[in-house]
Amino acid sequence: MDQKKIAIYPGTFDPVTNGHLDIMVRANTLFDKLIVAVALSPKKNPLFSTTERVGFIKEALNGQDKIEVHSFDNLLIDFAFEHKASVIIKGLRAVSDFEFELQMGLMNRNLNNQIETVFMIPSQEYSFLSSSFIKETAQHGADIRHLVPKCVYDGLQIIRK
Amino acid sequence: MDQKKIAIYPGTFDPVTNGHLDIMVRANTLFDKLIVAVALSPKKNPLFSTTERVGFIKEALNGQDKIEVHSFDNLLIDFAFEHKASVIIKGLRAVSDFEFELQMGLMNRNLNNQIETVFMIPSQEYSFLSSSFIKETAQHGADIRHLVPKCVYDGLQIIRK
Amino acid sequence: MDQKKIAIYPGTFDPVTNGHLDIMVRANTLFDKLIVAVALSPKKNPLFSTTERVGFIKEALNGQDKIEVHSFDNLLIDFAFEHKASVIIKGLRAVSDFEFELQMGLMNRNLNNQIETVFMIPSQEYSFLSSSFIKETAQHGADIRHLVPKCVYDGLQIIRK
Amino acid sequence: MDQKKIAIYPGTFDPVTNGHLDIMVRANTLFDKLIVAVALSPKKNPLFSTTERVGFIKEALNGQDKIEVHSFDNLLIDFAFEHKASVIIKGLRAVSDFEFELQMGLMNRNLNNQIETVFMIPSQEYSFLSSSFIKETAQHGADIRHLVPKCVYDGLQIIRK
Amino acid sequence: MDQKKIAIYPGTFDPVTNGHLDIMVRANTLFDKLIVAVALSPKKNPLFSTTERVGFIKEALNGQDKIEVHSFDNLLIDFAFEHKASVIIKGLRAVSDFEFELQMGLMNRNLNNQIETVFMIPSQEYSFLSSSFIKETAQHGADIRHLVPKCVYDGLQIIRK
Amino acid sequence: MDQKKIAIYPGTFDPVTNGHLDIMVRANTLFDKLIVAVALSPKKNPLFSTTERVGFIKEALNGQDKIEVHSFDNLLIDFAFEHKASVIIKGLRAVSDFEFELQMGLMNRNLNNQIETVFMIPSQEYSFLSSSFIKETAQHGADIRHLVPKCVYDGLQIIRK
Repeated sequence: MDQKKIAIYPGTFDPVTNGHLDIMVRANTLFDKLIVAVALSPKKNPLFSTTERVGFIKEALNGQDKIEVHSFDNLLIDFAFEHKASVIIKGLRAVSDFEFELQMGLMNRNLNNQIETVFMIPSQEYSFLSSSFIKETAQHGADIRHLVPKCVYDGLQIIRK
Repeated sequence: MDQKKIAIYPGTFDPVTNGHLDIMVRANTLFDKLIVAVALSPKKNPLFSTTERVGFIKEALNGQDKIEVHSFDNLLIDFAFEHKASVIIKGLRAVSDFEFELQMGLMNRNLNNQIETVFMIPSQEYSFLSSSFIKETAQHGADIRHLVPKCVYDGLQIIRK
Repeated sequence: MDQKKIAIYPGTFDPVTNGHLDIMVRANTLFDKLIVAVALSPKKNPLFSTTERVGFIKEALNGQDKIEVHSFDNLLIDFAFEHKASVIIKGLRAVSDFEFELQMGLMNRNLNNQIETVFMIPSQEYSFLSSSFIKETAQHGADIRHLVPKCVYDGLQIIRK
Repeated sequence: MDQKKIAIYPGTFDPVTNGHLDIMVRANTLFDKLIVAVALSPKKNPLFSTTERVGFIKEALNGQDKIEVHSFDNLLIDFAFEHKASVIIKGLRAVSDFEFELQMGLMNRNLNNQIETVFMIPSQEYSFLSSSFIKETAQHGADIRHLVPKCVYDGLQIIRK
Repeated sequence: MDQKKIAIYPGTFDPVTNGHLDIMVRANTLFDKLIVAVALSPKKNPLFSTTERVGFIKEALNGQDKIEVHSFDNLLIDFAFEHKASVIIKGLRAVSDFEFELQMGLMNRNLNNQIETVFMIPSQEYSFLSSSFIKETAQHGADIRHLVPKCVYDGLQIIRK
Repeated sequence: MDQKKIAIYPGTFDPVTNGHLDIMVRANTLFDKLIVAVALSPKKNPLFSTTERVGFIKEALNGQDKIEVHSFDNLLIDFAFEHKASVIIKGLRAVSDFEFELQMGLMNRNLNNQIETVFMIPSQEYSFLSSSFIKETAQHGADIRHLVPKCVYDGLQIIRK
């Protein structure tokens, strides 16, 4: 009997965008279970707390069972192993993304050869989208309601005030 | 009950290399069934016939059930649909590969949004390897036994004579 | 009094796609006159004749005055000079496009420093689109009516039969 | 009657280099009016104050009417709209520049589809030049007089002491 | 009589990895003398002191005469000139490395045309390896003994405690 | 006693440009002997015969002893071994060049680990220059006398007539 395939989709998600959610929905159809893994990333000095970042994703995913959302602060490869995941998902928008992620994927394979990294393509309409752009433009009052889930939009408005 | 996940790994495979086989083995662990799809590619003027290219892969995969090998001459996306596949696998060695494959993936999604393209990383030791290099160097007598399956090596020797 | 700014948009256009037309419309708003310049490109062995390629563009642009369509077989920089153009327009979809076009732009500047090359971004929904993809997929019966003007679609159907 | 074409050339310009000035002169020939827009960029922790950065550009451009220099701290796309600009100019030195600017251009188009981003090529002799390199090497006493306008050179000497 | 060829291999080396050592050994065979030049790099806020970074390299190179290790805080091109070096060595893992180093190489040539930058390829097994990855993963307890010399591994263990 | 360092600079050189000559002069200062190796490259369908291509380089190099010019039709790595060379020189103009050459370098190292590939940067003023551009523009009558040696210019004129 085939084993269940569990996939991890890691990131800082500060905050989650419609581009991230698009990858989650696509990845969810390919594997038996998807775990969204929110990195604490203290060095990136996130705008939102880990609790907020996890909360935004859970609220935006409302109704999508089969997707779990966790935070983690250990090595990604160890987190994957603990959750019996055999796949790490990365969304690729750009060539520079790819090269960095290729190096990360080889590094992770070097640490644990049982876990594969696979790359997916977000929907074209989100190809320019990044959490940094969202934070930068929202701070200046750009209308980004079509680019993030409602809870994130609301969260950004509170911070702006 | 979850549906079986069927993946397609397409290419010209003229001839198959150890890098291709590495991707096949990796992809095979992630999905319920893998179909290797050998494109006729008449415009590329292949060195080996379609029958030879399919034959090399079957011989090299000897013993790997769950992997089927077919040739095809229609649109990849139509071939995938006919075989109930929901995933197309591409191996990425280089940044220039990625950009071309990203465009292909978006094109294919435009034609059929139900089929995802996912990218995988071959083993580092094959990161420089391509069928063109194999043909070019084998023709000049380079010893490439560690880079291709034995049947391909033998096939290249016959052509050289 | 300011001089009229005339821009050239060169290409093989075998055949013109909605991505090319998108660039034409955008470029047309930026300059006083736009000349679409269809290169004969005999080395590329085009599917459509120069007359057909020019005809498709004229038909698709129907009603857009200020845009002229010509074929040319001399150096682009000489063609631009003859038509008093000071700008060459190139559409950039991908990083690999950019690098090639950057070299071409520097080469052309080396031959005539009075003519600038400027790069524009096509609409995201056409970022994967190329004439080669159109020809390849149309030949296999893909439905590409949303990607090319009607006259090109009809022209491709005739060739297929 | 054609409307006047107004272009914006944005940047941090900390400090302006001969490469920036080269783009300004080239862009100025293509459009009816050019506005150099100096971003406050407090997050980049600039070496020179906004007033100094604007002052250097004005002094270096001495005699070039048709070019205005302003600072701004709002969204670029809003600044462009306020000044009735329909074009944003970016100079591209490198492939990595291009990819970032392509994403920015798509983001800005998403916020305001009436404003086009166009990319120009600086003169080859400045293709390696960046404000960071200037600051880094000037601090160590490199002779960079041929790479920046005189006022910038003088400004860097004062800081060094 | 030919002059001795002296090469410089500069970096922050925070800490040195087996990938760096691989380049040192390869470069050492090509030139008459190799000088490893450890940049103070205070802006990068290094984990190890300059003394520690120099010490690790000396210990790891134990027995390789013909290789000197120095620290430097002036312009690389001035350091090279002082040591009569005519070549700067850079190891290239990735395309993004290349573009940055190409700009640096052109900048350095602009400052001193007598000193050439040459690029070398590290061994494939270290193509994913960087000092940042080492620090990041070691901090989380990854076993990286096959990726760094023993003295660096020990140094990282002490810091972790 | 140190062994003499012999370097190979391979290419099709159809025809040699000032960019190639710039790399030859630079490489010649770094190693004890430089061998320019002209590949027959029948698949590229060269414009000039091997004899002509070798002849152009010899004439252009007139007076540079220490540089030999040979043609070759075997594996580059075998040609290098026969001539006791330990270094292969490649000039890098662009990111896409780099990626292809990186793969070639790894392939060649795989076949013979004793021979290093090193990359050099041509002079900025030739960064756009390629033999293809020369042939394409010369055929249309562009004045390229500052981009190629006189003998190549003359050779191109004869062909044009």
